Amino acid sequence: MKQQVAERMQGISAFYVMELLQRAKELERLGRDIIHMEIGEPDFPTPQGVIDAGRALLQTGEVKYTAAAGLPELRSCIADYYQQQYGVKLDARRVFITPGASGAFLLAFGISLNPGEQVMMSDPCYPCNDNFVRLFNGKTHFVDVDATTGYQLTADLIARHWHQASKGVLVASPSNPTGTLLGEGELQRAIDTVNDLGGCFYSDEIYHGLVYDQSAASALQFSDDVFVINSFSKYFGMTGWRIGWLVVPDGFVEAAEKLAQNIFISTPTHSQHAALASFTPENKAELERRRLEFKTRRDFLYENLLKLGFKIACKPEGAFYIYADCSAFTDNSFEFARSLLEQEGVAVTPGRDFGQHLADQHIRFAYTASVDRMAAALERLERFLCR
Amino acid sequence: MKQQVAERMQGISAFYVMELLQRAKELERLGRDIIHMEIGEPDFPTPQGVIDAGRALLQTGEVKYTAAAGLPELRSCIADYYQQQYGVKLDARRVFITPGASGAFLLAFGISLNPGEQVMMSDPCYPCNDNFVRLFNGKTHFVDVDATTGYQLTADLIARHWHQASKGVLVASPSNPTGTLLGEGELQRAIDTVNDLGGCFYSDEIYHGLVYDQSAASALQFSDDVFVINSFSKYFGMTGWRIGWLVVPDGFVEAAEKLAQNIFISTPTHSQHAALASFTPENKAELERRRLEFKTRRDFLYENLLKLGFKIACKPEGAFYIYADCSAFTDNSFEFARSLLEQEGVAVTPGRDFGQHLADQHIRFAYTASVDRMAAALERLERFLCR
Repeated sequence: MKQQVAERMQGISAFYVMELLQRAKELERLGRDIIHMEIGEPDFPTPQGVIDAGRALLQTGEVKYTAAAGLPELRSCIADYYQQQYGVKLDARRVFITPGASGAFLLAFGISLNPGEQVMMSDPCYPCNDNFVRLFNGKTHFVDVDATTGYQLTADLIARHWHQASKGVLVASPSNPTGTLLGEGELQRAIDTVNDLGGCFYSDEIYHGLVYDQSAASALQFSDDVFVINSFSKYFGMTGWRIGWLVVPDGFVEAAEKLAQNIFISTPTHSQHAALASFTPENKAELERRRLEFKTRRDFLYENLLKLGFKIACKPEGAFYIYADCSAFTDNSFEFARSLLEQEGVAVTPGRDFGQHLADQHIRFAYTASVDRMAAALERLERFLCR
Repeated sequence: MKQQVAERMQGISAFYVMELLQRAKELERLGRDIIHMEIGEPDFPTPQGVIDAGRALLQTGEVKYTAAAGLPELRSCIADYYQQQYGVKLDARRVFITPGASGAFLLAFGISLNPGEQVMMSDPCYPCNDNFVRLFNGKTHFVDVDATTGYQLTADLIARHWHQASKGVLVASPSNPTGTLLGEGELQRAIDTVNDLGGCFYSDEIYHGLVYDQSAASALQFSDDVFVINSFSKYFGMTGWRIGWLVVPDGFVEAAEKLAQNIFISTPTHSQHAALASFTPENKAELERRRLEFKTRRDFLYENLLKLGFKIACKPEGAFYIYADCSAFTDNSFEFARSLLEQEGVAVTPGRDFGQHLADQHIRFAYTASVDRMAAALERLERFLCR
């Protein structure tokens, strides 16, 4: 008998984009100019008010553990935010501050998922979701989606694919990688369907706020029996601070409290105090300016990718991604991404990082670069395609 | 079928001390003076150099994701630290920066433990350890320990209790709650035994640095095939920053890299940059001053608890805890702790938070309060015992 890696790790793969990222860094060290459109991280710095609040806390030197569920005042702020943003009355007891959305997923699946149980997800979707399920020895049941449902699971798809081992359904709206929304009515029908089936509904809302044409609905508008995962990373511009939150159904509050004590102790204290400054009018105004900038970028990139011959079946309405069909140019999007990086210094994420369904025909562009940089990237892309 | 809490949560309990903590806060709101000796957190602020480094990073606004395994320069610093501190040559590739020791345990068990496999631990021990194992549907095999082995698992105990389902052994030196060390020779024999059995050796070294009579040996001095969990929380005074590290055997590097990407994305960036300042000569001098203060406190508390009639079978050599036998006064240490808080405003942790073996005869005192405050606590304790 030898020390062996746990079996679950066989099914957990590194992100393919990591290989490209590594190569991009090598090229940069060699002096090449690389335009980064692969990274799921806003290029803006953290807003100044949040920085200042973080620095003020550090100044005290008292960076001590907080309660496991988070600072009571931050939990209250978030509950209030649901009232303002969605008209939802939410008991702050149900809000748990977590180390990023990553921590929220750990907590949500840790308290609800038994080994062997299945969670339904769309293919394509964000790759970590499946791996969180594997971590707890659950199984992901992927359902292929396409433009006909806006790349989203619908009530109809859920009902059709639900079976005995199903524990619940995970949806993400706006979606990564497609940037598409689940409309209000569809979200409600999906939740009703899962509730009727007795399952758990996990709603990944980490790109809420970053929507450009209509607002995104929260699962909490339609039911109290849902898990909602959200984060200060994307809309609030706090990626490296590692802070997010989880809202749980009432029956899971005690379990979430116990598990958070054990697996986190608490979420970074300085990040929690800084996050409190996210809800000031000044900060909201700054976030609105950024949102409009992202909208401009989306429109710019969307139109230009179409002009170059990419197909984009659904115009993305949120997040900062465009999931573009590159089948006019290649049947191997990973090699396409690799060559594009090598020859033109433009980094994008290959479809296979998001699943298997038509993955080799897609790449994901992140518009986390300025319009000027994207314009340069598009020029390079055009040259690349004409070779 | 209803939405149900995962089965693993039935075995995961909240810390009993939380009930006392909550009551302590109520009493404080009512104006009572509470002396806190229940909390496993240094009362010192984070050292100024570390604070300054954190503030400097925040000032840039660029609090972005780092590599999943951590900042390369921090991983190198830690590898160098093993060279200086223990004379161990360690490849920085094997060092993973994690969100606290909590994150290190998640990573260690996530990549090594299959459902149903058992991890051997001492009773008493730190309660989260068992719960991390339960999280991954493993089982903890508790082995009762007492003063005859310094409350530690020995090679002999390990060999005697090892069986087919055993996956590995966790030791903590210095131990929480007993503050006892596993001597160099015993540690080596324990590791050899586990390696011979083909098991995983998990060494919890989070109280390293906080030792008062002899230095603590690291498992890495004796084998490369060990998991070492450590943290910036205790010795380095960075609890609320949530940063620790995990060293893995070479064969687990790839798995740790993959899992860290998926379940953390990265460890808080500001905390990583701040932690870099832990290794300056100025900071080391400050930490040494604090260590000497803890030693003074230990001696003061140890002598005075003995005078009051508590039995302390092993004089603690590290951490900041004394695990005191209170059987001269009660056969229910939880009720004892509750009454002590209620009547005299002194908060301590009941033995049952650390296991079942003689738990009702023990309470844990943390000397994370000044000598003056502890002197006041001891006066109150004496009055309490004389009632």
